[in-house]
Amino acid sequence: MLENPRAGRVKAIAKLSRRSYRQETGLFLLEGPQAVSEALTWRPDLVVELYATPTAAERHRDVVEAADNAGISWEFASEDVLLTMSDTVTPQGFAAVCRQHPTAAKDIFDSSPKLVAILEEVRDPGNLGTIIRAADAAGADALILTGRTVDPFNPKVVRSTTGSLFHLPFAVGADLASMTARARAGGLTVLAADVKGESLVDVRREGLLATPTAWVFGNEARGLDDDKLALADRAVTVPIYGRAESMNLATAASVCLYESAFAHHDRA
Amino acid sequence: MLENPRAGRVKAIAKLSRRSYRQETGLFLLEGPQAVSEALTWRPDLVVELYATPTAAERHRDVVEAADNAGISWEFASEDVLLTMSDTVTPQGFAAVCRQHPTAAKDIFDSSPKLVAILEEVRDPGNLGTIIRAADAAGADALILTGRTVDPFNPKVVRSTTGSLFHLPFAVGADLASMTARARAGGLTVLAADVKGESLVDVRREGLLATPTAWVFGNEARGLDDDKLALADRAVTVPIYGRAESMNLATAASVCLYESAFAHHDRA
Repeated sequence: MLENPRAGRVKAIAKLSRRSYRQETGLFLLEGPQAVSEALTWRPDLVVELYATPTAAERHRDVVEAADNAGISWEFASEDVLLTMSDTVTPQGFAAVCRQHPTAAKDIFDSSPKLVAILEEVRDPGNLGTIIRAADAAGADALILTGRTVDPFNPKVVRSTTGSLFHLPFAVGADLASMTARARAGGLTVLAADVKGESLVDVRREGLLATPTAWVFGNEARGLDDDKLALADRAVTVPIYGRAESMNLATAASVCLYESAFAHHDRA
Repeated sequence: MLENPRAGRVKAIAKLSRRSYRQETGLFLLEGPQAVSEALTWRPDLVVELYATPTAAERHRDVVEAADNAGISWEFASEDVLLTMSDTVTPQGFAAVCRQHPTAAKDIFDSSPKLVAILEEVRDPGNLGTIIRAADAAGADALILTGRTVDPFNPKVVRSTTGSLFHLPFAVGADLASMTARARAGGLTVLAADVKGESLVDVRREGLLATPTAWVFGNEARGLDDDKLALADRAVTVPIYGRAESMNLATAASVCLYESAFAHHDRA
């Protein structure tokens, strides 16, 4: 049992809360039984180290069994050790060091995706996590993070995706212009979500949402600059029927992605 | 200028971060230029006290002018005072003490609403705020908070609604059973969002969403208990097309409310 929170290994794991150290190592930290369970189910190949408190291992036998079945050796660690490793004050008894697993944009487009979400300069970790989770629920084939979008391996993003990070491929560090060009070359219509766009209702009525689509979502405060908007085939806005000044980015993205999903799946 | 962060008045305002003190006084605290501006635009009658730092008053002249135009006297306060009053570490230079303004459920139903969101046991302040904002954007006529749903005047809820709290009427402290009964008596179809329900796509195809609707959304972790589900006319689920285990409550609520809004507004 790993008991010393000042052990070098523990301190190294704690440093994964820093982006620079994640980039240097190509690793990230996963916390809590649910997230660890999702990793073990979908991408056990990514799990490098796994720690559990005795209490958590006892309470979540299914998780440690899944690790055993996947041939992943795990170690007991004290509550203090987990707390030191963790970015949160309640790490919930499980921590896993995982390999980062971005997909090359080329591979994403080679797989003929029908629904892609491109996130340009999304800065809030909670927003990014919520959008990744919504894209997963809506059955998006892939995510592409462009510009200075927040690191998807940021602990806050990882937590708010609740496992979706292991469910669908995503590319990072790409450039918006080249991604929209690739999307178009792959036969996808590029729709930019923007307050200045046409109503989503009109675009839906036109039948455009039933075609393969790459949605572009911009920064939560500034949206998309005009030169970026120009990269899209059409700009589309979720109409505001009430008095709200604006819409939460994750709310708008959820509605757009689901409208596409409904159009793709509900051809009756 | 109010300069002493230990002044009795400042301490009393700081206590508004506690639910018990909010209930005792019937007041709540609003922070930041945007939220204060929304209050001054839509419900200046609710603003009891208003404070601004000299820097913020200079930067946001429109806000202090709106206060002057509404006949609301405001006072300069130091950064220290604002920080003491505030629930956040960055109160952004404006704070207003406002009267709580719930609406009686009777008045809500007497106004023949077409789209109502009932929130039963929603416990996360960020979730509640996001749903209130999404309901506002979707043009919901009212919100009803039932059971032990988090206090809408909680500072975290107030912040995440970004002003929507002043845009639409909401009732608090009501009982779910009596609210669904009132909704039905008022000619609304009661739809409960629940993972065990029929697909939203099927319900939409049936034309049901075009009718006046009261949506019921349950607890983020547990959903709705069977006895509460039984109070609804139908249970409806947002289909999951991908691998996500579940959906964020605010995401599901956004999709449901917008599908209703589209059905109500897009009768072409």
